[in-house]
Amino acid sequence: MTFEEKIREIRGYVRKMELLDHTRAVLHWDLEVNTPPGGVKPRSEALGYLAGETHKLTTSPVVGEYIAWLEEQQLEDPVHKAMLRELKRSYDRMTKIPAERYMAFARLTSEAQSVWAEARKRNDYEMFKPYLQQILEFQKEFVGYLGFKANKYDTLLDLYEPGLTTETLEHVFGELRDKLVILLRELQEKGTRPDNSFLNGKYAEDAQRALNERALRLIGFDFQKGRMDVSAHPFTTSFANGDVRLTTRYAEDDFLSSLFSTLHEGGHALYEQGIADDLVGTGLANGVSMGIHESQSRFYENFIGRSREFWLNFHKDVAAAFPQLATVTPEQFYRAVNIAQPSLIRVEADELTYSMHIIIRFEMEKALINDELTVDDAPAVWSEKYASYLGVAPSNYAEGILQDVHWSGGMVGYFPSYALGNLYAAQIYNTMLKDLNVPTLVASGDLSPIREWLREKIHRHGAVYTPSELVVMVTGEPLNASYFVEYLKNKLFEVYRIN
Amino acid sequence: MTFEEKIREIRGYVRKMELLDHTRAVLHWDLEVNTPPGGVKPRSEALGYLAGETHKLTTSPVVGEYIAWLEEQQLEDPVHKAMLRELKRSYDRMTKIPAERYMAFARLTSEAQSVWAEARKRNDYEMFKPYLQQILEFQKEFVGYLGFKANKYDTLLDLYEPGLTTETLEHVFGELRDKLVILLRELQEKGTRPDNSFLNGKYAEDAQRALNERALRLIGFDFQKGRMDVSAHPFTTSFANGDVRLTTRYAEDDFLSSLFSTLHEGGHALYEQGIADDLVGTGLANGVSMGIHESQSRFYENFIGRSREFWLNFHKDVAAAFPQLATVTPEQFYRAVNIAQPSLIRVEADELTYSMHIIIRFEMEKALINDELTVDDAPAVWSEKYASYLGVAPSNYAEGILQDVHWSGGMVGYFPSYALGNLYAAQIYNTMLKDLNVPTLVASGDLSPIREWLREKIHRHGAVYTPSELVVMVTGEPLNASYFVEYLKNKLFEVYRIN
Repeated sequence: MTFEEKIREIRGYVRKMELLDHTRAVLHWDLEVNTPPGGVKPRSEALGYLAGETHKLTTSPVVGEYIAWLEEQQLEDPVHKAMLRELKRSYDRMTKIPAERYMAFARLTSEAQSVWAEARKRNDYEMFKPYLQQILEFQKEFVGYLGFKANKYDTLLDLYEPGLTTETLEHVFGELRDKLVILLRELQEKGTRPDNSFLNGKYAEDAQRALNERALRLIGFDFQKGRMDVSAHPFTTSFANGDVRLTTRYAEDDFLSSLFSTLHEGGHALYEQGIADDLVGTGLANGVSMGIHESQSRFYENFIGRSREFWLNFHKDVAAAFPQLATVTPEQFYRAVNIAQPSLIRVEADELTYSMHIIIRFEMEKALINDELTVDDAPAVWSEKYASYLGVAPSNYAEGILQDVHWSGGMVGYFPSYALGNLYAAQIYNTMLKDLNVPTLVASGDLSPIREWLREKIHRHGAVYTPSELVVMVTGEPLNASYFVEYLKNKLFEVYRIN
Repeated sequence: MTFEEKIREIRGYVRKMELLDHTRAVLHWDLEVNTPPGGVKPRSEALGYLAGETHKLTTSPVVGEYIAWLEEQQLEDPVHKAMLRELKRSYDRMTKIPAERYMAFARLTSEAQSVWAEARKRNDYEMFKPYLQQILEFQKEFVGYLGFKANKYDTLLDLYEPGLTTETLEHVFGELRDKLVILLRELQEKGTRPDNSFLNGKYAEDAQRALNERALRLIGFDFQKGRMDVSAHPFTTSFANGDVRLTTRYAEDDFLSSLFSTLHEGGHALYEQGIADDLVGTGLANGVSMGIHESQSRFYENFIGRSREFWLNFHKDVAAAFPQLATVTPEQFYRAVNIAQPSLIRVEADELTYSMHIIIRFEMEKALINDELTVDDAPAVWSEKYASYLGVAPSNYAEGILQDVHWSGGMVGYFPSYALGNLYAAQIYNTMLKDLNVPTLVASGDLSPIREWLREKIHRHGAVYTPSELVVMVTGEPLNASYFVEYLKNKLFEVYRIN
């Protein structure tokens, strides 16, 4: 068998794993978007069964042989190297976890997401607590199988951002928090808070949906290769680069929340739609890490959506959707969407205080996984941290500990990706400005060169390069948090009319 | 191992087959209802892959052992007997078909359904023709594997109505056709055709949807255990008795088409929602045959939906949805929806001429499978048959040979189930009248005793009893076509004011 024939054989096997992933993703998406109450239990069973099939495919002895063969070759093509890296990663991890436990976890988290959605609606933490407890027990059990060096939490972080450690995050977040606290104080003391009272009003869901669709078309989302739906917590999933689905949700009194969440998910979706066709069958046709993924979503949500130039163009679409806002100027919109204001809901937070929401979750997850915090005490600690870091306190669970979907889906260790995404996004944006006149493009409403730049530099590569390789390839240097703080300071001093 | 332990082991295995069926059904439903154009190819690949998994599970040597063990037992429980029957049926069939060909057929039909929907929209038979050709080749190839006695078409009929033969159908349909032709002539010559001109108008989709939902609630559809969506061709699918999904479609100038199609699919859905919980894991938690399934859909569409009493109650809902119809009397509605009028579209046909649409498809399928007709000649033959049997001719493919989804989905041999469904429905209705005062219940708007009667006698049993066993259990005699003709004659003579 020639090298090419063997590679083709391996790709055939990997394609089966991809089709199974596709299948599970469809069942998950449908569970969040469409499934009636009576369908949750059988769906959870089906997802448990399919998790077992994934376990089988991933840990099959034939995969061990493929890995051994690939390791013996002098691999030159970065795609082949990355195939080896990813096959090894999932094989090493999955062979340590008993199939039966992996399946049980899949069943639990499928069911828990519906329970969470209902508990959030009813503002009932007790309803969700036993599920949270079980999910944390599973996570600790899995850390036991997988092992850890310095901190149990590292093993979970590694799932979403390979190589990321608790120690690194403590350092980065410590510095970030200090700088942001100073910046926030300066704005509050010396700045002029923009007015946003003109946003009070009612916004019909149909009009919001149409506006979101306009925003998605504007950034270059292809509706022939994807769709937008409604779910309890916005998310994006990809079944293939030709079928990428994002969700949003609607509140009658706040169209901006849905708009920015749509731009955020749209950023994720552009990444997945932009992955090269020829990565099908390599296991690399997906975003490389959640940190890089969040850089794309936070880029479109904030660097684009909260820019002055975006509102120079988009205000007319808003006025068309909501005639009561026809007299609002672009500058008024721009300043209103950049108010730095401690608040309770992470996904609605401004760019400055957003990181504090992440730091709180990081600290809580670290404590929960290391048995330094119980699920009974968690809501009180949540409130204390919000009071201490942001000076606000939730009046109920729905705007407190029940606000996020992640834990119910078993995604403990995910949140830091968001903060990392902000840092990556600022650094990438800084490089993009050297190639493109971004403000002019955004003001003109022609955002396609921006999408093409990102597609060429980032999207098309899927998971071929590691996050650290990619950030150096794109920006010429490793992750550097200073771009983000610098960007925020410049922008917010101007918005708040300081100096 | 005790008898009970072995049965539990077998049920555990069968449950895996059910969960895989659930999975494939979700992917199919999503393909018809939600998938954007870019998602069709990868979805077809995924469905091909999953068909292979079904093939593996169904033909595994362990199934052969289960069958052998079951055959050795003195089975008494009808559920155990039926488990053996169904396991044997799928094992015997599937072991004869090569896995690779079964997978290729699944890929083809998944893709073909999207091509068909597009071809129908564009009125382009040439676009669909190569797919139809390949599907027919596959069907003939499968008949080759499975064998046949008198007629190749028998093997396909058996998939949807076990035991049904071409010869039986030729006999039943011959007699039916003769009687219906006489009845239609009598109506036309001696009767007074009801007026339906008051139905001309525009009906907003939102209002149609709300009206359909009311109709579904009226017949007892449980929205906690199912949902209603839109697709190119209406269908019903079940992922579990707690998650049953039906679809409809909307035409702005005809709300009755969507309403009757919703009642039809609602009848299918009640069957699936009514299957007993304890059949989970037996492989019997589904309708027993398509003939029995169609008896439930045609019952709600026609015996209920086209009854005088239905309109006595429902006309006020129609008036609320469409104020322009507020002055139409129940009697006007009743007579208008019972006009016997040769037409082009099967799903919109009246009860009398409907069977002629089925007979045409039966004759064409029989000819296509036996190489007595080519896909090139099929549209012309279609037109000839419509002209000869119904006196109408399609002016385009969309209202001719491209109108039905079945062939694109690989369902050759399905159509006769509809005609059979009419016959079963009339016979079941005749028995129901002995237990329930159906007209009074329908007029009062309390249809729950009707659903409960059907649930008790038919729905809850799933596939435990064969169609012929079931019809005798319910009605006390084998299938008897005379009830249907009698019912039609009585009703239509009255509607057409003859005597």
